[in-house]
Amino acid sequence: MQRGIKRVKSSFEYLRKLFIMPDSPDKFIEFGRELLEMIHDFFQEKTGIHSSITLPELSNIFNQTSLPDSPQLIKDVLSEIKTKIIDHSVKVGSPYYIGHMTSAIPYFMILLEMIIAALNQNQVKIETAKASSFVERELLAWMHRLVFNRRDAFYERHIQNPRIALGNITSDGSVGNLTALFVAREKAFPPDEGFMGVRASGMHEALRHHGYTRGVVLVSTRGHYSIRKAANILGIGEENVVTIAVDSGNRMDTKKLKKKIKTLDPRLGGENAKIIAIVGIAGTTETGNIDRLDVLEEIAHEAGIHFHVDACWGGPALLVDEYRGFFKGIEKADSVTIDAHKLFYCPMSMGMVLFRSEKDLNTIRHSSQYIIRRNSVDTGRFTLEGSRPFACLKPWASLKIIGREGYGLLFKQARRNTDLLKKVLEGFGNFECLNNPELFILTYRFIPEDVKERLYGWKREPAGSGDKKRRKAVEKTIVKVNRLINAFTVKLHKALRRDDSTFVSRTTLESTRYRPQQIVVLRAVLINPLTTKKFLEQIVATQNRIALQLWQDFRPAYERMVEEVGGVIPSTRELPGAKAAHLL
Amino acid sequence: MQRGIKRVKSSFEYLRKLFIMPDSPDKFIEFGRELLEMIHDFFQEKTGIHSSITLPELSNIFNQTSLPDSPQLIKDVLSEIKTKIIDHSVKVGSPYYIGHMTSAIPYFMILLEMIIAALNQNQVKIETAKASSFVERELLAWMHRLVFNRRDAFYERHIQNPRIALGNITSDGSVGNLTALFVAREKAFPPDEGFMGVRASGMHEALRHHGYTRGVVLVSTRGHYSIRKAANILGIGEENVVTIAVDSGNRMDTKKLKKKIKTLDPRLGGENAKIIAIVGIAGTTETGNIDRLDVLEEIAHEAGIHFHVDACWGGPALLVDEYRGFFKGIEKADSVTIDAHKLFYCPMSMGMVLFRSEKDLNTIRHSSQYIIRRNSVDTGRFTLEGSRPFACLKPWASLKIIGREGYGLLFKQARRNTDLLKKVLEGFGNFECLNNPELFILTYRFIPEDVKERLYGWKREPAGSGDKKRRKAVEKTIVKVNRLINAFTVKLHKALRRDDSTFVSRTTLESTRYRPQQIVVLRAVLINPLTTKKFLEQIVATQNRIALQLWQDFRPAYERMVEEVGGVIPSTRELPGAKAAHLL
Repeated sequence: MQRGIKRVKSSFEYLRKLFIMPDSPDKFIEFGRELLEMIHDFFQEKTGIHSSITLPELSNIFNQTSLPDSPQLIKDVLSEIKTKIIDHSVKVGSPYYIGHMTSAIPYFMILLEMIIAALNQNQVKIETAKASSFVERELLAWMHRLVFNRRDAFYERHIQNPRIALGNITSDGSVGNLTALFVAREKAFPPDEGFMGVRASGMHEALRHHGYTRGVVLVSTRGHYSIRKAANILGIGEENVVTIAVDSGNRMDTKKLKKKIKTLDPRLGGENAKIIAIVGIAGTTETGNIDRLDVLEEIAHEAGIHFHVDACWGGPALLVDEYRGFFKGIEKADSVTIDAHKLFYCPMSMGMVLFRSEKDLNTIRHSSQYIIRRNSVDTGRFTLEGSRPFACLKPWASLKIIGREGYGLLFKQARRNTDLLKKVLEGFGNFECLNNPELFILTYRFIPEDVKERLYGWKREPAGSGDKKRRKAVEKTIVKVNRLINAFTVKLHKALRRDDSTFVSRTTLESTRYRPQQIVVLRAVLINPLTTKKFLEQIVATQNRIALQLWQDFRPAYERMVEEVGGVIPSTRELPGAKAAHLL
Repeated sequence: MQRGIKRVKSSFEYLRKLFIMPDSPDKFIEFGRELLEMIHDFFQEKTGIHSSITLPELSNIFNQTSLPDSPQLIKDVLSEIKTKIIDHSVKVGSPYYIGHMTSAIPYFMILLEMIIAALNQNQVKIETAKASSFVERELLAWMHRLVFNRRDAFYERHIQNPRIALGNITSDGSVGNLTALFVAREKAFPPDEGFMGVRASGMHEALRHHGYTRGVVLVSTRGHYSIRKAANILGIGEENVVTIAVDSGNRMDTKKLKKKIKTLDPRLGGENAKIIAIVGIAGTTETGNIDRLDVLEEIAHEAGIHFHVDACWGGPALLVDEYRGFFKGIEKADSVTIDAHKLFYCPMSMGMVLFRSEKDLNTIRHSSQYIIRRNSVDTGRFTLEGSRPFACLKPWASLKIIGREGYGLLFKQARRNTDLLKKVLEGFGNFECLNNPELFILTYRFIPEDVKERLYGWKREPAGSGDKKRRKAVEKTIVKVNRLINAFTVKLHKALRRDDSTFVSRTTLESTRYRPQQIVVLRAVLINPLTTKKFLEQIVATQNRIALQLWQDFRPAYERMVEEVGGVIPSTRELPGAKAAHLL
């Protein structure tokens, strides 16, 4: 039990008044005002991004192992929330926070959440969600048209057709991807004579009946981890997610995909595997790149395979004409997932999964007696989740308030910031950019300019000339130096977390210019409209300052490596008039 | 394009201002105030529960097949939301709305949603959710103790131990049940020599390796539809959810369960099925009854089977000592699901799944490079979902504000209302109650008193005496009359929906006093603390009035049935001094 907390004497009358009552709005308004100001203050504070409190300290704050017995005053709990939680939350909306896909949100989103909570509609069923069921279908039709752009008549017929679903609102993108692969699995093993379908009989019977040894899902090595997780959940097995290597642009190598299909598909002389789905990505979580969807689509449909596109990140960019070109082929996909809490700037969390064919979601339709009856109009007949909030109000209203034009401007700014960050990094000289994103994600790392020049010099040494031994020694050294910088980057990222005035994330990629070596990189996501040039310059300056200091610990090891292959290394400094970064 | 809507000229500066800005809180406060008043007005309005608008009319409102191009003013969109959505929403918080588990919520929940949205933490990862990750673990420890009540040392060690998870916060109960069965499936087919586990290799290889023909899940016929759905998703197959009949108290028949296990388990001479889980229910969605969890637990663990309890509905009743007895055995279950948006009175939607063993969730742990790294402290390593909102703040704060005591008072009132409704129904004479709930759900139907008496008279006719032919004719007539009343009840429910001043739901059950016949029933869920005696009386009076009128259309058919077995029927009116309802 915590001390110093005022207990309230419980009575049913007191409790009843806590519930929304027509005759007691005053308290509500009063608290609402206070809260709005409290939230305002939080965003105004100039503290660090993650608050300086340590994880062990937080462990000591949240260590009550028994739940509270006596009621406490709302104002006491709100003030506890302020000091214990709000003050130690991550300022994901800070212009200095450019590390994850969580960003600032428009303030009207908070108003929408108030409406959603107050109405408390449960989307599972028309009896608990009247107008909101129609809003959901309207939004899904908008998104369906945005992606698949079918004919007017299609949307006029289906926008409010309760017998089908053009897609589902899901709790997030992972559940969206799961739903897409779930449908793909049902379609891969439909009922026929002597087999009731995978839905009724399970994966074992499905494969046994059809004489397959396994079902597989194909995705590039850049695929989101939710694909592997979905394969696990669906009883397909994680090992049966076969990953295809990417090119240097982080896009699936389509030649390798074709080869792989040949080794799997029994009709092409491969093993007895059933390919359940090919998954394209638009864009990748780590690098913001987009697969060549048109090529993937052709390959998938030629082989009769469900083609799913994970556009959880990039999907909203379809709103803007200048980006549509990158997505060519998406309009022929079988299913597409898009998150609302990423580029639609909605608060956590909401995903969408859309199916080109209005019939697809009927493969997983279910019903029960007391709810979502067979002939009902309930949206819950098609979803993995049961109870669902009226979350779709957020993108629905946001598309009205911001509009296609507004999102266009936001993405233009995100593009500008991506280019700007690249320029700022190059200006400092001590950084190396490692991807070329279509969609607002930059990966890079710190390398002191002289080290970078030496590395590039080594790389430029012609492979054919000179003795092979020398070449091997140089290549080995490049790997060793990269390994050292990898360790350095991990330390740097930790030091930046400790500094806490700025934030980027970190990941490890094999598709940089050093492939097949895995390279640890810093990762910036540039979608916060509050992040301007000034902030980007400060972020990079901070990284440069902390990195230069930290590099002192790593320099000796680096110099030993240089000495080993030393004397004959041509320094790029000696090359006339150029910085290494501009040569490559 | 809609006419009459004011377009806003887009500019990046205009958009930037929509995002939460330290220097522009005025608009936010202003809209917040207006919204609070708008919400207040909605609850004050005396309109029908579902609004009188028809579904085709709603289809005509939400029929824009293209998404909006130009931005609109926030105030215009808010006013559109008011007239198009709020006015046509379901008043789930109305004291006359006693049909589903969605009820009124305390007003502070709206304040909590504002905090959740404003902070916009993503629970998947500590880098996007700092204090909130600790809040989540603290809440899970509270709930774990409430259910499993392990020793103090267990909670002190694990409450903030990031290497394990005592449970997950899920988007709802269906995902909670899915997670529990997912873990059960992993435990049923662990890796061994020559087999990498179901996780890696899928269901086919799991069954093949172990020589099973199928995996099954056992649950009573009262099981929630999410169990069947989960079996489908998990590749187990819906047909492999084997349902066990219930007794007249809607509880799984444990003798039949034992028998069924014998026919399945190869060690007991059954077919080659692997029993993945036995699912107990506390309480059932349709009738609020609780399985004999202690007996189920013994049976499950004797056979080495994962025992899951679906306590999505009833779980919070564990807070109150007088209810704990009903749940005996739950403390030994392997996993338990509990919804926050039902008896914790939180807005839509949040579920929890808890595992007795702190090791269980590690069977589904996953990781990736850029997020939820293997050695991280990220809660996202254990969840089916990826991005998740800070939803746990709601029950966490609510347990402080309402407290164990407060919830006790709310449930006492729910119990009182359940008994009260029963009494009111009996007082009217024309109703028949069909279950005896532990937890606040009453099923009943309208039967005019004289019809009920005749029905009961027929039922009382001794089976042994008289000729067999006569008995058969009577039994057949009971079935026919019930069938007639079933059709009547469906019509009545539709008429009540049209009247729209009150709301109960409807379902079909085989476990009433007429089993094995399926009986259509009205279903009341009595958890709204705003529903007092006065409201219950009005609800029943409305039902009685509309039903009596509607019965005129059904009476002739009924009378024909009576005539067929007519003359010799002893009327219960002739029995001295008793109403049929009190005799049975």
